[in-house]
Amino acid sequence: MIDLRSDTVTKPTAAMREAMYRAEVGDDVYKEDPTVRRLEELASQMLGKEDALFVTSGTQGNQIAVLTHCRSGNEVLLEQDSHIFYYEGGAISAFAGVQTRTIPGNKGEMDPRQIELAIRGNDIHEPETGLICVENTHNRAGGAIVSAENMKAIFEVATAHAVPVHLDGARLFNAAVASNCSLKEFTQYTDTVQVCLSKGLGAPIGSIIAGPKEFITSARKWRKRLGGGLRQVGTIAAPGLIALSEMVDRLSEDHHHAKILAEGIGSVNGLEVVNTVDTNIVLVDVSGKKLASNEFIEKLSDAGVKAVSFGPSVVRFTTHYDVSKQEIEEALRFINSI
Amino acid sequence: MIDLRSDTVTKPTAAMREAMYRAEVGDDVYKEDPTVRRLEELASQMLGKEDALFVTSGTQGNQIAVLTHCRSGNEVLLEQDSHIFYYEGGAISAFAGVQTRTIPGNKGEMDPRQIELAIRGNDIHEPETGLICVENTHNRAGGAIVSAENMKAIFEVATAHAVPVHLDGARLFNAAVASNCSLKEFTQYTDTVQVCLSKGLGAPIGSIIAGPKEFITSARKWRKRLGGGLRQVGTIAAPGLIALSEMVDRLSEDHHHAKILAEGIGSVNGLEVVNTVDTNIVLVDVSGKKLASNEFIEKLSDAGVKAVSFGPSVVRFTTHYDVSKQEIEEALRFINSI
Amino acid sequence: MIDLRSDTVTKPTAAMREAMYRAEVGDDVYKEDPTVRRLEELASQMLGKEDALFVTSGTQGNQIAVLTHCRSGNEVLLEQDSHIFYYEGGAISAFAGVQTRTIPGNKGEMDPRQIELAIRGNDIHEPETGLICVENTHNRAGGAIVSAENMKAIFEVATAHAVPVHLDGARLFNAAVASNCSLKEFTQYTDTVQVCLSKGLGAPIGSIIAGPKEFITSARKWRKRLGGGLRQVGTIAAPGLIALSEMVDRLSEDHHHAKILAEGIGSVNGLEVVNTVDTNIVLVDVSGKKLASNEFIEKLSDAGVKAVSFGPSVVRFTTHYDVSKQEIEEALRFINSI
Amino acid sequence: MIDLRSDTVTKPTAAMREAMYRAEVGDDVYKEDPTVRRLEELASQMLGKEDALFVTSGTQGNQIAVLTHCRSGNEVLLEQDSHIFYYEGGAISAFAGVQTRTIPGNKGEMDPRQIELAIRGNDIHEPETGLICVENTHNRAGGAIVSAENMKAIFEVATAHAVPVHLDGARLFNAAVASNCSLKEFTQYTDTVQVCLSKGLGAPIGSIIAGPKEFITSARKWRKRLGGGLRQVGTIAAPGLIALSEMVDRLSEDHHHAKILAEGIGSVNGLEVVNTVDTNIVLVDVSGKKLASNEFIEKLSDAGVKAVSFGPSVVRFTTHYDVSKQEIEEALRFINSI
Repeated sequence: MIDLRSDTVTKPTAAMREAMYRAEVGDDVYKEDPTVRRLEELASQMLGKEDALFVTSGTQGNQIAVLTHCRSGNEVLLEQDSHIFYYEGGAISAFAGVQTRTIPGNKGEMDPRQIELAIRGNDIHEPETGLICVENTHNRAGGAIVSAENMKAIFEVATAHAVPVHLDGARLFNAAVASNCSLKEFTQYTDTVQVCLSKGLGAPIGSIIAGPKEFITSARKWRKRLGGGLRQVGTIAAPGLIALSEMVDRLSEDHHHAKILAEGIGSVNGLEVVNTVDTNIVLVDVSGKKLASNEFIEKLSDAGVKAVSFGPSVVRFTTHYDVSKQEIEEALRFINSI
Repeated sequence: MIDLRSDTVTKPTAAMREAMYRAEVGDDVYKEDPTVRRLEELASQMLGKEDALFVTSGTQGNQIAVLTHCRSGNEVLLEQDSHIFYYEGGAISAFAGVQTRTIPGNKGEMDPRQIELAIRGNDIHEPETGLICVENTHNRAGGAIVSAENMKAIFEVATAHAVPVHLDGARLFNAAVASNCSLKEFTQYTDTVQVCLSKGLGAPIGSIIAGPKEFITSARKWRKRLGGGLRQVGTIAAPGLIALSEMVDRLSEDHHHAKILAEGIGSVNGLEVVNTVDTNIVLVDVSGKKLASNEFIEKLSDAGVKAVSFGPSVVRFTTHYDVSKQEIEEALRFINSI
Repeated sequence: MIDLRSDTVTKPTAAMREAMYRAEVGDDVYKEDPTVRRLEELASQMLGKEDALFVTSGTQGNQIAVLTHCRSGNEVLLEQDSHIFYYEGGAISAFAGVQTRTIPGNKGEMDPRQIELAIRGNDIHEPETGLICVENTHNRAGGAIVSAENMKAIFEVATAHAVPVHLDGARLFNAAVASNCSLKEFTQYTDTVQVCLSKGLGAPIGSIIAGPKEFITSARKWRKRLGGGLRQVGTIAAPGLIALSEMVDRLSEDHHHAKILAEGIGSVNGLEVVNTVDTNIVLVDVSGKKLASNEFIEKLSDAGVKAVSFGPSVVRFTTHYDVSKQEIEEALRFINSI
Repeated sequence: MIDLRSDTVTKPTAAMREAMYRAEVGDDVYKEDPTVRRLEELASQMLGKEDALFVTSGTQGNQIAVLTHCRSGNEVLLEQDSHIFYYEGGAISAFAGVQTRTIPGNKGEMDPRQIELAIRGNDIHEPETGLICVENTHNRAGGAIVSAENMKAIFEVATAHAVPVHLDGARLFNAAVASNCSLKEFTQYTDTVQVCLSKGLGAPIGSIIAGPKEFITSARKWRKRLGGGLRQVGTIAAPGLIALSEMVDRLSEDHHHAKILAEGIGSVNGLEVVNTVDTNIVLVDVSGKKLASNEFIEKLSDAGVKAVSFGPSVVRFTTHYDVSKQEIEEALRFINSI
């Protein structure tokens, strides 16, 4: 089976397993785990923020950010297909009590003028705009890179209206590697950021949120309320350290594989690649095959390739560490066979 | 001053004041106010629902409906310019903990196919769709009537997916009078409905929500939590009874006045009516005058006419009981003078 | 029927009905109702606070206070039998997301040392203490007066820990009249206060919250979210003005009647008055009659007197404007007959 | 340093590290991690429930239970010093929107009659009682065992009123081992239960919630919203399996050590053991030393023993896997030296 459903399926590397085995640990609720502290320091440096906090998932990191930035009765602006809006179970409203106001994006990029128009005034009928969320790379836009220029323009609008910005950077490493720049090129234009250590970087569990020191202090308490205050966290922070220090550059391979996959699929009758394949995601419209996405996925699975549905007629393929170039080529043969 | 800001500015009629003076009252928390009970019975009959409940405002009625239909973690589908989303301070998320998912409408009508696509499945990443809200007439669409056909189609989709429908009918009376049909023509296609007794009907305070008996029982408790459980309610229910029994038919005058106003404004250089004027609202784009909506409104106010801004370049005029045909004509002269 | 269930059953006086009939009104959402503004000004003066806001009920006033003072994740300290905890449907947690921490009182008075011990530190496991609520008079303690001394001591603890205080003064007028002092004697020891215009003062609907100017500004928006932003509010504010200016002093009659009632009941075999009858409430233990409170109430109702249950063996009687001294004496005869 | 602050400071055993190293893993969001599935199956068998779910902490397990059992506006009954009320940051109200109603316990046991009196009726002023929570062993009562008899009596009251029961069994293994019985002896009297794999059992991270199949299905979605849906969970589930299969019986050592510690401390002038030491916790009143608990702890720390404050004059000592009998004796010498 060649599993192209998600980069979340990557298994920890041998080095990561070794690191778990040897991890120096302590009780992180007492802030005494040296490994997680090292991870948080490295992450805050890489992200150019004062402080950082380990969390168990991207969803948890995003939820904590919203809980810390906002209070109930606020409104949050975010892209209409963004993960926080689309895939987090409505948690942002259930827990933080904020209303979501979605902006349609173009390849994941929101128009700063539309954001400015959507920021609320102080009319008594209107919620206060409490946060703007950007997602980079943008998952449902097919791993599209939101350019630093777009982020800058949004950040300027936000700053002018005293509204903070949070970056859902679950796959920000992909954006940086594909853009051949540092993370800071992007994170300079956000107040806070969440990045995943799993996904492309291969750690089994965990994400990081980073931001100003007092934001992190408050975030730590919200993490505790969510049940994310853990004990000997070094066990899972150790592979996270390897993820940050050894696994970033190799993302270019995944991007290369995605391009090969997209080209191959593009030449198949009845299949159409619908995104620009900036990074490691390929979105394919299968309606030319007279199949619903779920039917296509089932046939594909029988042939030996796994993918996921992204709507009635679109299928998502994601390249990652556990799929080699050879397997990509094999996958293409299976896809061709349908 | 000719006040065309909103039909909410209407003052109680002499008959309403007399009714307040004479109202038979009791403690409604003990369900012993005979006047409010008569009002609720009349309203439930007119709306074709099992039971009805007096609430202090349209916002309160809508919030109670969401709190009663949904639980936190649900998602609510509603038109992107609807009152519940736009003008209720994000209360739906702050109190009921539900996420808003907006659908762009055409003159207030949502496409049932888009609604069907937006209803969530049972994927673990997704909130459950807990409610669909329709607004009729649609305020920000310029008092547009949502046709019974559109409501029927939405209700069928909703029913097929076991999702309830709530109708924000703050100005449903306008829709019925302008369509020359009964309220039930519309309310047959919704599980619950909220209608306002103030606005065009002229009562000083109050709205009604109606629906199945056990919905109203549960709604009554949510009303208490919101602080809407009142004592000698008959004092304000009495004018509500007059609103329902004597003030509905005359809404046709307001609609006639709105048409006169729209025609007059349409012939003014630099002003453009942007809605179809189904009922008592006229939306005017003032950008041809090289003025922002707020600037135009200020000049207009100096001239003796009040209106409200509906965005950077649009001004809303609303006709109502306290503005006569003669005043409409006078208002047109003032508008012409700018 | 002599109705001693609650002072909420009082019907508006002839003067109040006249005032409703003549009330000068405007749209209060636009802050244009002159009568409600007069009421709010008078109330803020009487309560010694910068500003005041009309709300539709005591519950609504209390909920707005909590929503404005606190944010979710906070903890609120309040007496274990207080109205906010006991009788508001858990709204404080449902809407403001705050945890209730109850302190047992002595005749409604909480021990300031217990409050100090209950104020949370900044440990990561603990919620922040966001508010302390006092209730005066205390309903479930039998209309007990919380002394200004007790309020002062609590306020000093609160201030030392930078925690605000809210006073649920639904029956604060009773406390002031019975103590022969001004409202300010009590309200000087609270940041914000809610007082009811209905109950002993006889207005059909409404309460007031008062506090600092910016508290009221924020409270106004929370009132809108709760559906308490009304239109021609003057209609119900007008009787409120009469309540404040003409109905306060006469509360001493209700207190006198309650004392007569308590003395009479005290001499009945099998009945025991369990509170000190500071104001207009008499709590009676009926277990000596070998009856549950509900059974006693039923028999009493058959005899012509209404009261309410306050637990398995306690019955509450409340005196008010609509019960004369003669009716109290008649009620005693009925009670004696059981 | 001899660390007696908490059993949460235990470090993973060599076998646990080995298990992490070798763990067979998969993506648990897709339910494909075989190790966590084995853990959940073993746990559900041991706890006598249909299904079980791995969560990252006891707090997370408890919060998910409340979110799944209740809806906002409900009230939860729980012991006044229970962890859910005292140490979870008010999360139960912040996230689930439920009001806490606390019952004072006797050595952690609540009186079933008090619970029955506290269950709410259907009066419109009252929240619905949505859940009763029991904690066993009870942390703040000094690791006190809540007897199966007490649990049975509470469960019968709950069942009679159709209110579900949740057991916070963070240290339920201690209760079972000290009572020389199976977990099921206790869990038969609860609908759902949370047990910790860390604490006495020594796993670095994780807890289990168990209950009916459809409860767990709904709980899984709430876990996702809280950010507890993880990827290659087998890495931390593997030590959890060892915790359940190899570490339970040895808790008797910790209990033995706690008794030695308590006896030793009991003979020190100025120190008084205030709990009965059922399991692994010793609470000591240090006021006889003329020291506040924090001052005592500081001196103790200088001497080489760590403990935590449990109020102004009480210090908690907790025995666990990483403290040997010899270290307990050494700790006693240090304590004696103060």
